[in-house]
Amino acid sequence: MALIRAYALAVGLLFVAGGLPARAAPGHTGARADRTEFIEHAIQGGRARNVILLIGDGLGDAEITLARNYALGAAGRLVLDTLPLTGACTTYAVDEWYPHTPDFVTDSAAAATAWATGHKTSNGRVSTAPGTGEALTTIVELAQENGLRTGSVTTAELTDATPAALAAHVNHRSCQGPADMLLCPQDKKAAGGPGSIAEQLIDHHVDVLLGGGRQRFEQVIDGGAFTAQTVTQSARAQGYLVVTTAGELQAAELRSAVGGAERSRKLLGLFAPADMSLEWQGQLAAPFPGSGPQICIEHVRPPHEPSLAAMTRKAIEVLDRSGPSTGWLRRRPGPGFFLQVEGASIDKRAHAADPCGQIGETVAFDAAVAVVLDYAATHPDTLVIVTGDHAHSSQIVPSRDVTAQVPGIYSRLLTPDGGIMTVYYATNAAGQRQHHTGSQVRIAAQGPQAANVVGLSDQTDLFHVMARALGLERDTTRTGFLRALAHTIGLQ
Amino acid sequence: MALIRAYALAVGLLFVAGGLPARAAPGHTGARADRTEFIEHAIQGGRARNVILLIGDGLGDAEITLARNYALGAAGRLVLDTLPLTGACTTYAVDEWYPHTPDFVTDSAAAATAWATGHKTSNGRVSTAPGTGEALTTIVELAQENGLRTGSVTTAELTDATPAALAAHVNHRSCQGPADMLLCPQDKKAAGGPGSIAEQLIDHHVDVLLGGGRQRFEQVIDGGAFTAQTVTQSARAQGYLVVTTAGELQAAELRSAVGGAERSRKLLGLFAPADMSLEWQGQLAAPFPGSGPQICIEHVRPPHEPSLAAMTRKAIEVLDRSGPSTGWLRRRPGPGFFLQVEGASIDKRAHAADPCGQIGETVAFDAAVAVVLDYAATHPDTLVIVTGDHAHSSQIVPSRDVTAQVPGIYSRLLTPDGGIMTVYYATNAAGQRQHHTGSQVRIAAQGPQAANVVGLSDQTDLFHVMARALGLERDTTRTGFLRALAHTIGLQ
Repeated sequence: MALIRAYALAVGLLFVAGGLPARAAPGHTGARADRTEFIEHAIQGGRARNVILLIGDGLGDAEITLARNYALGAAGRLVLDTLPLTGACTTYAVDEWYPHTPDFVTDSAAAATAWATGHKTSNGRVSTAPGTGEALTTIVELAQENGLRTGSVTTAELTDATPAALAAHVNHRSCQGPADMLLCPQDKKAAGGPGSIAEQLIDHHVDVLLGGGRQRFEQVIDGGAFTAQTVTQSARAQGYLVVTTAGELQAAELRSAVGGAERSRKLLGLFAPADMSLEWQGQLAAPFPGSGPQICIEHVRPPHEPSLAAMTRKAIEVLDRSGPSTGWLRRRPGPGFFLQVEGASIDKRAHAADPCGQIGETVAFDAAVAVVLDYAATHPDTLVIVTGDHAHSSQIVPSRDVTAQVPGIYSRLLTPDGGIMTVYYATNAAGQRQHHTGSQVRIAAQGPQAANVVGLSDQTDLFHVMARALGLERDTTRTGFLRALAHTIGLQ
Repeated sequence: MALIRAYALAVGLLFVAGGLPARAAPGHTGARADRTEFIEHAIQGGRARNVILLIGDGLGDAEITLARNYALGAAGRLVLDTLPLTGACTTYAVDEWYPHTPDFVTDSAAAATAWATGHKTSNGRVSTAPGTGEALTTIVELAQENGLRTGSVTTAELTDATPAALAAHVNHRSCQGPADMLLCPQDKKAAGGPGSIAEQLIDHHVDVLLGGGRQRFEQVIDGGAFTAQTVTQSARAQGYLVVTTAGELQAAELRSAVGGAERSRKLLGLFAPADMSLEWQGQLAAPFPGSGPQICIEHVRPPHEPSLAAMTRKAIEVLDRSGPSTGWLRRRPGPGFFLQVEGASIDKRAHAADPCGQIGETVAFDAAVAVVLDYAATHPDTLVIVTGDHAHSSQIVPSRDVTAQVPGIYSRLLTPDGGIMTVYYATNAAGQRQHHTGSQVRIAAQGPQAANVVGLSDQTDLFHVMARALGLERDTTRTGFLRALAHTIGLQ
């Protein structure tokens, strides 16, 4: 035991020395000072130039806690813990045929539809209404109509549910590429429809699309102007620069193409055939006596794939048209942007009962939050929101009470503060896909309108908060009218 | 199915007509207005006259969500959802012999010690330090030293861990009465110690003690001034009015004893031999195909036992010495109070995998929150905090995905919005006690210093927030000093 503790301590020191987010607090010591004024100062109403929404897929409170415990110790603080304004968010979906009846556990498609459109839908749907299949206007579409740039970054396939809901409308999330249209025959381009999710993302001219799912974009279009071309070819024809490695992403220079109009102002990064590679690996959870005690293996992502943080940094660089300051006369930067960043495989590894995979993706997501907060520090007119789309199956259970009779699977992880944390999964049988759960999830924010995440809100409210912040939605309150007036006549 | 839905709808109507908290919103409709100014206005620094801490034992985010779903529908709002300022709170305990090493899943004793004293301890300990057993000063002791009145209300035994930690110091939570001292021999009065938890609560002169656990107080004291008397007899001798029924509680008139000094200014209510009776009952969770679909049976508490809301109302009435206003000249009300209110059996019924029991206790806890918010509405110098002491085992899982192979036990509940919610427990085998879990929990507050719960805090921080609010702890920041000065010279 002493040996294990010494080892854990050594690992803890490695953690501190290693690649963790710079903002991570070393530990929780003594009384916290009065934060009243800090919170007071964090509250801003008014308009945001930019909105950056960071979604940890499957990142419920249990998933946040266990990642913190492993990465930094129980008293540590993730970057996502440091956002000043916090609340909880309900996540339920609705029934396909009785849309006033809740489906208490949402999938990622219905969840993303809720904040992308402000409307509840049934599980599996992507920005379409339950029952009717009517297309629901998304925050990206509204942003584009108002001259804002838009972007989506994910570690999943770009055609996966969470990024899809921003700018595609299909009846089922599986309709990801032109060859995947079994459940959406009416949406096929050959049938006069808008095409698969991959086609719609490109045809929507989302300015930055970075993630996995290359195979979807290599499928052949079956109708319309680009018949018999791949989606990637249609993207190039419509002005996208296409990159497929971390190096190409780093080197991509969209700014230099001044005068090139639309030609190379858009960026499509497809870094893996399907989901992007994981950051960490380790032993899966197992029946009694469980797996571990283990230390996760870090840095397993191949270097030709960029990290979520690197993709996020590039996306912001491309989307932010304000450029370097040109002196004090330059008072009004150009129109802003909407960017969604998804840490997708937190969910995927929780489905697989893989605590190391899940924690590694959470730490990588947290590094992306750090990139965004660094940007926001110099661009305070940015509304930053961090939340999960639904809770997941993982639970932290008492190590001493896990005996041969527990029905679930688990792994014991050594933490940097010398503890042993038992991560437990039991929503399905060993070897089967673990399920989402229906708990409300944490939501945190900073910047203009961020106070609206405090208290209890619903995922559909998030759409309105973002739309209001970007001036895409009329605020009908008296104060809102006065603010809008002040904004219009240049007082704000 | 249509019949079930119609039935659920009818039940929903009954819910609306029935005994639910008056503040419950009927449903979640459309876009929420901008809450920036509401949140801004909710922030107050400075001092509180009173602190009321409401603890839902085992009330994690999953437990809140499933109670809301059942009682009000997924779009409903509990009273506890309406507190303006919200955050998350970490709950871990520490190792007995390596107190810098976390024990990632706390019990109620270590959790209550954390907010009662500001110090982490090991599971099982009651306001004593790990390893040494040193007594840790509690918020109740500090409050009393500063002339504040104090109270504790619970649906458990008054000697159970959560109320015990306020005003007792023992090495193990099981040492509840003079005859229960097997694990605390050195604390026995016969051994010159402070006695059991029951004895210490009385000897501490806590002004109001309302709950269960009468059998502990009927045990015979084995040392000191009250040798061979019961704890209840010693309580009477030390100035407590002792009541044992809802009627006696209602009739208790402590105010009229003006001039009676200490004699009848204190109230001990012992309404059940052990834990107080449950509010609701229903089928326990069961292995596949689960129990239900069910509607819980409400109103099963016998009428001679008061509700948590009734106990809370009486406690406030007794503790608040300001009395009815005597005109505008009466500018400064008397010293304030500290009151803890525990909804204890949320935890106990989650241990038993009893969703109806758990939800009924949560709804009863929510009614107590409503009583407190009603008081705070006319006494805005009251800091109100609502949180759980640890998360629990219950999960909401997708009804359609619960098949014969899931390893846990579950029940299907019909909700007022026509849904079927599957509540699932799998941290232990069927029939065994389900375990606590280690997730961070929700914390919400209003009143002076309430902004300190926003963001991520730890249970030990809660002690400092409450102590600072009551002026029991020096605020060493410059602003804090100026505020204290202003307070002292009567400007605030």
